[in-house]
Amino acid sequence: MAYNPPTREVRFILEEVMALEGLKTTGVFDELSSDLTAAILEEGGKFCAGMLAPLNHSADQFGAKLKDGEVITAPGFRQAYAQFVEGGWQGLSFAQIDGGMGLPNALGVAFQEMLQAANMAFGLCPMLTMGALEVLTHAGTDEQKTLYLPRLMSGEWSASMNLTEPSAGSDVGALRTMAKPVGDGSWLLEGQKIFITWGEHDCAPNIIHLVLARTPDAPAGTRGLSLFLVPKFLLDDKGEPGTRNDARAIGLEHKLGIHASPTCVMEYGGNGGAKGWLLGDEGKGMAMMFIMMNSARLNVGAQGVGIAERAYQQALSYARDRGQGRAIGVDEYPAAIIHHPDVRRMLMTMKAKITAARSICLACAIASDYAAHLSDKDERQAAKAREELLTPLAKSYGSEVGVEVSSLALQVHGGMGYIEETGAAQHYRDARITPIYEGTNGIQAIDLVGRKLNMMGGYPMTRLIEEMRETVEDCATSSNPELPFIGVTLGTAIDTLESATAWLRDTAREKTDVLAAATPYQSIACETVGGYYLAIGAIAAQRLLKDGEDQNFAKDRIALARYFAETVLSGVPGKSGDITAGGALLFGVSEAGLGT
Amino acid sequence: MAYNPPTREVRFILEEVMALEGLKTTGVFDELSSDLTAAILEEGGKFCAGMLAPLNHSADQFGAKLKDGEVITAPGFRQAYAQFVEGGWQGLSFAQIDGGMGLPNALGVAFQEMLQAANMAFGLCPMLTMGALEVLTHAGTDEQKTLYLPRLMSGEWSASMNLTEPSAGSDVGALRTMAKPVGDGSWLLEGQKIFITWGEHDCAPNIIHLVLARTPDAPAGTRGLSLFLVPKFLLDDKGEPGTRNDARAIGLEHKLGIHASPTCVMEYGGNGGAKGWLLGDEGKGMAMMFIMMNSARLNVGAQGVGIAERAYQQALSYARDRGQGRAIGVDEYPAAIIHHPDVRRMLMTMKAKITAARSICLACAIASDYAAHLSDKDERQAAKAREELLTPLAKSYGSEVGVEVSSLALQVHGGMGYIEETGAAQHYRDARITPIYEGTNGIQAIDLVGRKLNMMGGYPMTRLIEEMRETVEDCATSSNPELPFIGVTLGTAIDTLESATAWLRDTAREKTDVLAAATPYQSIACETVGGYYLAIGAIAAQRLLKDGEDQNFAKDRIALARYFAETVLSGVPGKSGDITAGGALLFGVSEAGLGT
Repeated sequence: MAYNPPTREVRFILEEVMALEGLKTTGVFDELSSDLTAAILEEGGKFCAGMLAPLNHSADQFGAKLKDGEVITAPGFRQAYAQFVEGGWQGLSFAQIDGGMGLPNALGVAFQEMLQAANMAFGLCPMLTMGALEVLTHAGTDEQKTLYLPRLMSGEWSASMNLTEPSAGSDVGALRTMAKPVGDGSWLLEGQKIFITWGEHDCAPNIIHLVLARTPDAPAGTRGLSLFLVPKFLLDDKGEPGTRNDARAIGLEHKLGIHASPTCVMEYGGNGGAKGWLLGDEGKGMAMMFIMMNSARLNVGAQGVGIAERAYQQALSYARDRGQGRAIGVDEYPAAIIHHPDVRRMLMTMKAKITAARSICLACAIASDYAAHLSDKDERQAAKAREELLTPLAKSYGSEVGVEVSSLALQVHGGMGYIEETGAAQHYRDARITPIYEGTNGIQAIDLVGRKLNMMGGYPMTRLIEEMRETVEDCATSSNPELPFIGVTLGTAIDTLESATAWLRDTAREKTDVLAAATPYQSIACETVGGYYLAIGAIAAQRLLKDGEDQNFAKDRIALARYFAETVLSGVPGKSGDITAGGALLFGVSEAGLGT
Repeated sequence: MAYNPPTREVRFILEEVMALEGLKTTGVFDELSSDLTAAILEEGGKFCAGMLAPLNHSADQFGAKLKDGEVITAPGFRQAYAQFVEGGWQGLSFAQIDGGMGLPNALGVAFQEMLQAANMAFGLCPMLTMGALEVLTHAGTDEQKTLYLPRLMSGEWSASMNLTEPSAGSDVGALRTMAKPVGDGSWLLEGQKIFITWGEHDCAPNIIHLVLARTPDAPAGTRGLSLFLVPKFLLDDKGEPGTRNDARAIGLEHKLGIHASPTCVMEYGGNGGAKGWLLGDEGKGMAMMFIMMNSARLNVGAQGVGIAERAYQQALSYARDRGQGRAIGVDEYPAAIIHHPDVRRMLMTMKAKITAARSICLACAIASDYAAHLSDKDERQAAKAREELLTPLAKSYGSEVGVEVSSLALQVHGGMGYIEETGAAQHYRDARITPIYEGTNGIQAIDLVGRKLNMMGGYPMTRLIEEMRETVEDCATSSNPELPFIGVTLGTAIDTLESATAWLRDTAREKTDVLAAATPYQSIACETVGGYYLAIGAIAAQRLLKDGEDQNFAKDRIALARYFAETVLSGVPGKSGDITAGGALLFGVSEAGLGT
């Protein structure tokens, strides 16, 4: 099944909704232009669609194989990876001084969406390397940067992130892997890590594992954790991969989806100890993790959007081709099922939610660019706050839209959707991991209500609500009669969000009540903010209409915003009861009574 | 993973919510008693939990294999099937005069839920045989009944239902399989059928295929269809399987789930013609199909509930065992995740929705019993109308709850849920077919708004709304302070349902607008009616509380109804805009604009 990179739509969001070129004010992206954006999306899209998308189904069938401690990846992956390295895509959004392309993260996230849409199992490898690059560029020593940065930035070497252990998942602080100092600046690690994405493979000549471990006499919990850099092959005097390190994949997980992504059980020190070096300070492992966390979470959101877009395109194509029954106002028999209202509803729901989730992800990415590059400290902090606020929304909504849209796409196919050869089922299987990894969506919600709402005295959400109200005003005064309706519906959703926010931030509120409200609050926050960006899109589209540009695109964009308002935003107020019901409701049924 | 039949809960619904013993007034079920109900559920549950549930995971891994036209089923299936036959479970809800146990369909559906929960891939075989039994008992000739009924009723032989062809799915009338009369009362069939569940297997010595086909010179569309009985082995003079008929499995589908259920491509007449006999009159194939349709759809609803219950039990067990992090008010570290509010929310959501969906299914089943057995014609028709109205709700809500709950259950497991060995992923894969087969949920919605709402001048929904209002009254006057709240929330949901119903039944309404509203209307109908049965359950539980019986169960049942009211019913009014927005909204984006 072909994949068409949604470059027109992404450009519209970046340029018309998010004003990407505003980033020039930071002084960092002087070369930014509409042409450059178009070129990057075109070239990136070409690579994803041409090289990676055709491998998606066959790679799913092949999976990944572990043989004598080495992982064999799906046919075509090695060649595709080589092309990926040649294109320089790994360093797209990293600074030129570090060897990257020096482009905004907004373009990086837009590229991630296409990469993941084309081939999610493959795309996880560079996504993990990105995380390591974040840490290395921020916290690596000069020597570490010299040794590892160029090869990781080019993608020649890949990286893995090692947090989870059998007893330590969401509770990272419970992990037991130990690191002991050797005395020469290096450490010896011993322990087992699970769920290590691309922990071992045959696409790169070296793999740099970042491993969270406990040091001797370190305090319990997360404060006792440090991060270590553990290469698969230790570097020789020339900096080339030499001796094999004592870090091995001892098992591959048999998963529901992303079959072609090797998910490894990694053993460190099965044979004397895996040699590693401290990254950042001792005891600062969690701080190191947080450096990459925002970016990784945002990328998972983009991944959900990507899978959703891929699944949607396939469903749309099927709906145009598949004839079945008679449709109102259509002469041909059988009519293509796209003409049936119920199928049309599914398609519209998919497109509207994809657009909302994509907008949140790109807004978060642009905020991260401002947060990284604004020179004024207050403005930089405000941007950082926006990024941090939007991160759980991007991750949770992107991933939930990924699951919901891939399910709707399967449904559009009817019985054919349930047959693996069709390909719709693969998206459904692949997407299902996204609400789980990089912090489950429940963890995102707790982060949102527990930390993000209380940052800077509540400023980030207060400010976002103010901005959203301005858009409601803009909608109200539009000459296009669709817009005031969108504005009214958005305004009512904002009212709900604002009340719920106040309820949550009430200092007298019990912690259990706050935690009980986390997920439904996160849900309305995503819908409201998604609707807000769609409304800005409608205003921008109205501008295009007036200017006589892209008439069809503009009309459709307004109709899409209206659809989202009527079917999603209008439901937000009805969810407030669920939020403010409190923890007692959740614990109303006794633990014993939950059983049969 | 063990399965605990939810007998206590099912008995409560059957006896306290649905007043099962009221069926005695039909004069058909004199022996019905609380003891009998308990005995059937206990015995049936024992078979399902003891024999079938342990095979669920291994059978999923084995799948089904096609070799030289014969299907080999998973290890253990043949033995389990023999036990199933020995228990007489196939005929549970069929009349004794036809060789069945003579029990109400309500108990039959309760048994189906357990059967499907224990092993959905296996359970499909008897479910399909049930459909054939429905047709045969209603429309078979005496000779056909003599030849086929006893062996099908005992389960010794199984049956398959053959409707779908590559170009004829939801649009059954488009099918092309041909039947030509031989002259001796038999017919020769030629054509290919796809998605034929258990069309070929090794568990029974004969398989009776019911095949929908077109006769010579028959009109186009559904009016030209007739139903044929086509045995795998033609019967010899003694009625025993003799010559192999020209009906063969030529392929097995590779599916997302229910791997152990052989989904066959069936070829009829690849070698001269498959011999068959007309079932019912020529041209009445669709009428024959409708005989089994209600029962099959209801059973798919029960199947969704069953998978949901199974997935829920596994998640609950995991949540009790898995320790992770600290929980408020819990000393132990790590705390079992069941104590975390967000996990508790998922568990409560699962349990509440399972209970609502199960109630709708059992209500539909009891209505079908009254519809079959009441002596007064008007009362019988009223019961039939209730059955017909509830059928799309049972099918769509049961299946949607199956998908949603199995997804939440996977989420509770975190990363472990994504690993196939855990078993959570299997439920997620298995459940996903239920919104598709036996009429997609979109088809159910169209049936609901197009046919069911307009039956008998709208009587069925009007009457149901009246009944629901009586329950609101009962809640309002309860001495338990929880109940008035539940009543108020239910009342508001009913208001929404009533307005939406009036809007849909407005004779000036465009057909496109009605079709556009179908799915969201069906959704609020399911939620409101599910909440109604939960409210009756709360009233019944309050009765238990007063009588000093089952105090813990009763309190929990009231808390569960309250949870459903606050989290589901309270959201119903917010969905009205989506229903009444009309078809223009769905077609607002141009067909071209749906693309990239």
